[in-house]
Amino acid sequence: SFLWESYEAGQAWLVVSLVGVVIGVNAAFIAICTEWLSDIKLGRCSYAWWLNQKFCCWGVESEDGYCDDWSEWSGFAIIDYVFYLVFATTFAASAAYLVRRYAPYAAGSGISEIKCILAGFIMKGYLGGWTLVIKSLGLAMSVAANLSVGKEGPSIHIACCAGHVVSRLFPKYQRSRAKSREIISASAAAGVAVAFGAPIGGVLFSFEEMSNHFPAKTMWRSFFCALVATVTLQTMNPYRTGKLVMFQVSYDRDWHFFEMIFFVLLGIFGGLYGALIIKYNLKVQQVRKRYLADYGVIEAAALAFLTCTFAYWNIFMKIDMAESMDILFRECEGSEDYMGLCKPENTWRMVALLFFALVMRIATCTISYGAKVPAGIFVPSMAIGALFGRMLGLIVRAAQAAYPGFVLFSSCKPDVPCITPGTYAFLGAAALGGVMRLTVCVVVIMFELTGALNYILPTMITLMVTKTVGDYFGRGGIADRYIRLNGYPFLDKEEHSFGIAVSQVMQKDVTVLPASGTRLDRVERLLADTSYQGFPVVEDSTSRTLIGYIGRSELRYVIDKAKRARNVSPMAHCFFRPGSMESRQHMDQAAASAVGGLDHRSDADDDDMGAGISSSSSSVFHGGHARRASESETNYVDFGPFIDQTPIAVHPKLPLETVMEFFKKMGPRVILIEHQGKLVGLITIKDLLKYITRTEALDEEDDDMEEPA
Amino acid sequence: SFLWESYEAGQAWLVVSLVGVVIGVNAAFIAICTEWLSDIKLGRCSYAWWLNQKFCCWGVESEDGYCDDWSEWSGFAIIDYVFYLVFATTFAASAAYLVRRYAPYAAGSGISEIKCILAGFIMKGYLGGWTLVIKSLGLAMSVAANLSVGKEGPSIHIACCAGHVVSRLFPKYQRSRAKSREIISASAAAGVAVAFGAPIGGVLFSFEEMSNHFPAKTMWRSFFCALVATVTLQTMNPYRTGKLVMFQVSYDRDWHFFEMIFFVLLGIFGGLYGALIIKYNLKVQQVRKRYLADYGVIEAAALAFLTCTFAYWNIFMKIDMAESMDILFRECEGSEDYMGLCKPENTWRMVALLFFALVMRIATCTISYGAKVPAGIFVPSMAIGALFGRMLGLIVRAAQAAYPGFVLFSSCKPDVPCITPGTYAFLGAAALGGVMRLTVCVVVIMFELTGALNYILPTMITLMVTKTVGDYFGRGGIADRYIRLNGYPFLDKEEHSFGIAVSQVMQKDVTVLPASGTRLDRVERLLADTSYQGFPVVEDSTSRTLIGYIGRSELRYVIDKAKRARNVSPMAHCFFRPGSMESRQHMDQAAASAVGGLDHRSDADDDDMGAGISSSSSSVFHGGHARRASESETNYVDFGPFIDQTPIAVHPKLPLETVMEFFKKMGPRVILIEHQGKLVGLITIKDLLKYITRTEALDEEDDDMEEPA
Repeated sequence: SFLWESYEAGQAWLVVSLVGVVIGVNAAFIAICTEWLSDIKLGRCSYAWWLNQKFCCWGVESEDGYCDDWSEWSGFAIIDYVFYLVFATTFAASAAYLVRRYAPYAAGSGISEIKCILAGFIMKGYLGGWTLVIKSLGLAMSVAANLSVGKEGPSIHIACCAGHVVSRLFPKYQRSRAKSREIISASAAAGVAVAFGAPIGGVLFSFEEMSNHFPAKTMWRSFFCALVATVTLQTMNPYRTGKLVMFQVSYDRDWHFFEMIFFVLLGIFGGLYGALIIKYNLKVQQVRKRYLADYGVIEAAALAFLTCTFAYWNIFMKIDMAESMDILFRECEGSEDYMGLCKPENTWRMVALLFFALVMRIATCTISYGAKVPAGIFVPSMAIGALFGRMLGLIVRAAQAAYPGFVLFSSCKPDVPCITPGTYAFLGAAALGGVMRLTVCVVVIMFELTGALNYILPTMITLMVTKTVGDYFGRGGIADRYIRLNGYPFLDKEEHSFGIAVSQVMQKDVTVLPASGTRLDRVERLLADTSYQGFPVVEDSTSRTLIGYIGRSELRYVIDKAKRARNVSPMAHCFFRPGSMESRQHMDQAAASAVGGLDHRSDADDDDMGAGISSSSSSVFHGGHARRASESETNYVDFGPFIDQTPIAVHPKLPLETVMEFFKKMGPRVILIEHQGKLVGLITIKDLLKYITRTEALDEEDDDMEEPA
Repeated sequence: SFLWESYEAGQAWLVVSLVGVVIGVNAAFIAICTEWLSDIKLGRCSYAWWLNQKFCCWGVESEDGYCDDWSEWSGFAIIDYVFYLVFATTFAASAAYLVRRYAPYAAGSGISEIKCILAGFIMKGYLGGWTLVIKSLGLAMSVAANLSVGKEGPSIHIACCAGHVVSRLFPKYQRSRAKSREIISASAAAGVAVAFGAPIGGVLFSFEEMSNHFPAKTMWRSFFCALVATVTLQTMNPYRTGKLVMFQVSYDRDWHFFEMIFFVLLGIFGGLYGALIIKYNLKVQQVRKRYLADYGVIEAAALAFLTCTFAYWNIFMKIDMAESMDILFRECEGSEDYMGLCKPENTWRMVALLFFALVMRIATCTISYGAKVPAGIFVPSMAIGALFGRMLGLIVRAAQAAYPGFVLFSSCKPDVPCITPGTYAFLGAAALGGVMRLTVCVVVIMFELTGALNYILPTMITLMVTKTVGDYFGRGGIADRYIRLNGYPFLDKEEHSFGIAVSQVMQKDVTVLPASGTRLDRVERLLADTSYQGFPVVEDSTSRTLIGYIGRSELRYVIDKAKRARNVSPMAHCFFRPGSMESRQHMDQAAASAVGGLDHRSDADDDDMGAGISSSSSSVFHGGHARRASESETNYVDFGPFIDQTPIAVHPKLPLETVMEFFKKMGPRVILIEHQGKLVGLITIKDLLKYITRTEALDEEDDDMEEPA
């Protein structure tokens, strides 16, 4: 018994640890697959086909970075190009095929949907085991195909699947959606943690972007989950560097105040990029929804073919995006140089290459995000920012070299390098958090990625500018815009001011259930004819004195049970009266005496209020006892024990803003409007969203006039 | 008009920027004062008394770290010792005197109180201008006096004062407590940011420890405020290092897995330290409250004298705590060495010194925190952790040197230093976040302080252990315990499970105001005889149909106004009926016709619900028009426009947990209990806290039996 109690108390930690291990192992698997697939496009290991370039050449690296064991497919550029194209196209098509065939939910990023799930929205199967497997495989393939997609969104989705699958093994989490959501929050943090090797950044990401309810307890669990996942990943050590830090750079030179101008420029670029990509990607997405819904595989193949056709000829696009960022961040001190990037005489050729890569990446990223393969937008955005930043850095360095006497460069010391283009690339990458509208967590992720601590202030300034510019062009990051595009019932974090009372928006014509006097066939007709998630229960239809609320699934459950257990007639009386035995006996002597115990209300319902009235909380009812059938029982059905006696009910004059606060903070699906004990209406999140959309549509018509082209 | 609108929209940013600049400048001032006062204890600059040691010796540092321009007071140890003691005692006494004489609120840390203020509690004058000035001066003195107190809590308090003082200059913030609280949240972040040079850590501290409501908007403002404050501080550059990072260290050697054992040990020490210091400091605090309330100055002087008597003879205690941490964190690579700390032959002498410093610091910290000077506990805890860590590190290094063949040390490479005692000191310092029960923000602050990114995993593991051990000995950090000790009405973030309905805890015997039929003298008597913050308004006392709620200050305001404007009689009828003109006319023709406009309800009331019914929101009523006096008006007073028609009202069967959620998330001061339109009771935060204390008292009696000594 003591053991059992300890087990119960420690169960959450056990679950979180298991989830962390699974996420870490899976991330290592994805990393290994991605690297191998990515390298196989370019060549093979001569003595063991299953090794990627790095392992193949382990320890035999020569001066110029080549090794004899790794050979390109033919050595002829054109034939290698064909191999590259064929492999990339095949990977993309396979990823799309796997998604289409086995797990349609594995497509895209998943961040929007998980935000909704964490807010209480229910999407059956979205976090299933198949999605986990297929998305992991598909992610490795789509990244290896050199599509302009990233792994951060899918990593989160995969991690949440792992969290859900593991936690379902424990009855406590199977029962309670609220507890299950805590695990999903923690998993999301671990997902980011393993995608970037940034455990704290992951926790902050989960807080800032994913969860609308993030108490200290969840933070603490997320922290632990991210820690376990990261330790697991580091122990597996897929990159064989022994480091958690992905792109370790240490900038020896500090920044100068005059460079602030360029940091602001990077910020502006980030903000503009965010606004543009949101705008055009949403348009592409609408086209995709309308015309390309059935051509996911062909589309993915075409995108990969298109991207790689150009990419092969550009040294910054040919390689993996993460690899290219690593190169762009470098300080150019010491021996390491990639394809002559650091040589001053190459400056203008490099600027041209970077510019071309920049334009191509933006174009392909705009059309690729949202394709039917696992695809995130964070890493491509960072890569684009790094390309732009390095380009700007090279230009500034060239300008300083050409005009060292110019007033702007007066704080540069002579004979010492003054501008570090790598830091511009770093800040550019940070600025492209603009597409997600994140701030604090991006700063932390950038540090955890690189360790460049003396660049903390420039990073913050750049991100401030990005966010300000981005907000000027419209509120909400790309994930929020996808939520709206898909019409999910999700209230974003922004504050609205409506200036009206809830009574002006509520549904006045509410279908109610009177406490007694309704026949079973009518209840069944109600369930068949309407799609409401539940019904308010009132004393009688004329007085409309509110006595509770009953959900659709509870109604369904009681009816099915009554039908299974005893031969209940369609004309049976339905009772919707909660409360004590005595009061009921008083009401209906014959009926009550046949009921048996009234302890049907499950004590295990430790779910929060949101899930308590959700559409599928049938697992809550395990505490109900089967009833013994008797003749008199065929005449009535008692719903009493399943009525929620304390639904959230508010005054009709309550300001709509406060009602929104109730939805966001207390998490109900529906709020009843009650005046002096009588039901006068109800409001759901959907009613509220409809109202917001209606008023915003009016605003946006005005906005469109002013919108810059 | 456009300009005005832009100004209105940008006002928040203007305020936050101003606040940030003030905080930054003030922090620089404190830093300069502290350094100078701290150095003057030991000696003086021979050519300019106003320079501290570092500036005095600027550029003339010799090999051994001495410079001729800085001379000790006499050169004789005993006389220098006396100088040291006299200065320290004077500083401490002056700090306490200033606090006592000019700003009693400037005593202590202030974190507990600011937590309450951010939760909606009102403490007049706590964030005033005098507190700002005195706490800044006093902080510099008490740190320079070498008391075992830190600057982080006071920095936050000072920053919040700055935020409050600056924001009061703008009418928008003067009017709305909710908006004012947003600025205070942001200021708290900036306070931590300047105390440690850790802007992101500051934002996280504000989120994790200070605020119970931290929406994305506040986060964003906090981020900006912390940024501005940090940039200001860096521009002022009080340390003349040009670095933001306080203790920059770069650990060249990575950690080994076997060291995990010692990291866990550090974590356990941190947890035990937290538990012990909370326990004994609270006892000291009780003694202080009872016997030492009037002897603040003498107490502070005695504490400084006591601390310095021992401190002078210990190289780790003689200097500033921040300086000593800087020394303890060092890697011992290269030339820098402090008093032979790095020499292996000194190991055991150093261990002894560290141990003595450790014991003394713990003892003095336990008795000093809570003294009537500005005093935080975060930095001394970190210093204690660093002492313990360095000691452990030295021991482990010695063990490894003595027994290199021992199985534990098998992963050490021969002829290369294996153990880095500096990293143990670093982790020890992190572990001592245990006293605050913080996690994520401590990790971030530690990185921002040192830049030791490859120690992210050890830091997380150590903190996990600390928190687990700490939680085993009792919930809540020291700030929360002080809140309880002082009896502030504050609901902590922990989740409780009560398992009972609100009706079992609510006040049933509620003083109500009927909508009509009450005479003015009775209302005035009610205000005089009770101390309730407000009264529910009901249709009539027998039916108790709920129609609203009116606060004490609103009652007071209407009565005072009526008395001032017209000769109202004590027998005047009081009307408490909200709603439209027509309904009132119908009710009381004569009265209503004389009322004039009904537009008294201020539109400017954009305050949140918590403050809406707070005790001193009189600034809200500026929209009310003065009424013309007439004879008939002397017969009645109309409170209608000031009645809150939509107070939060819940069902008597609502679980108490949910009521607690309402308090925490929606922020009301009182929740009415209503059943079918009738008032059956009410509950306040204090009722809830009383219930929690009562049930916990029962639990703790059991706990005390098992508690380890």
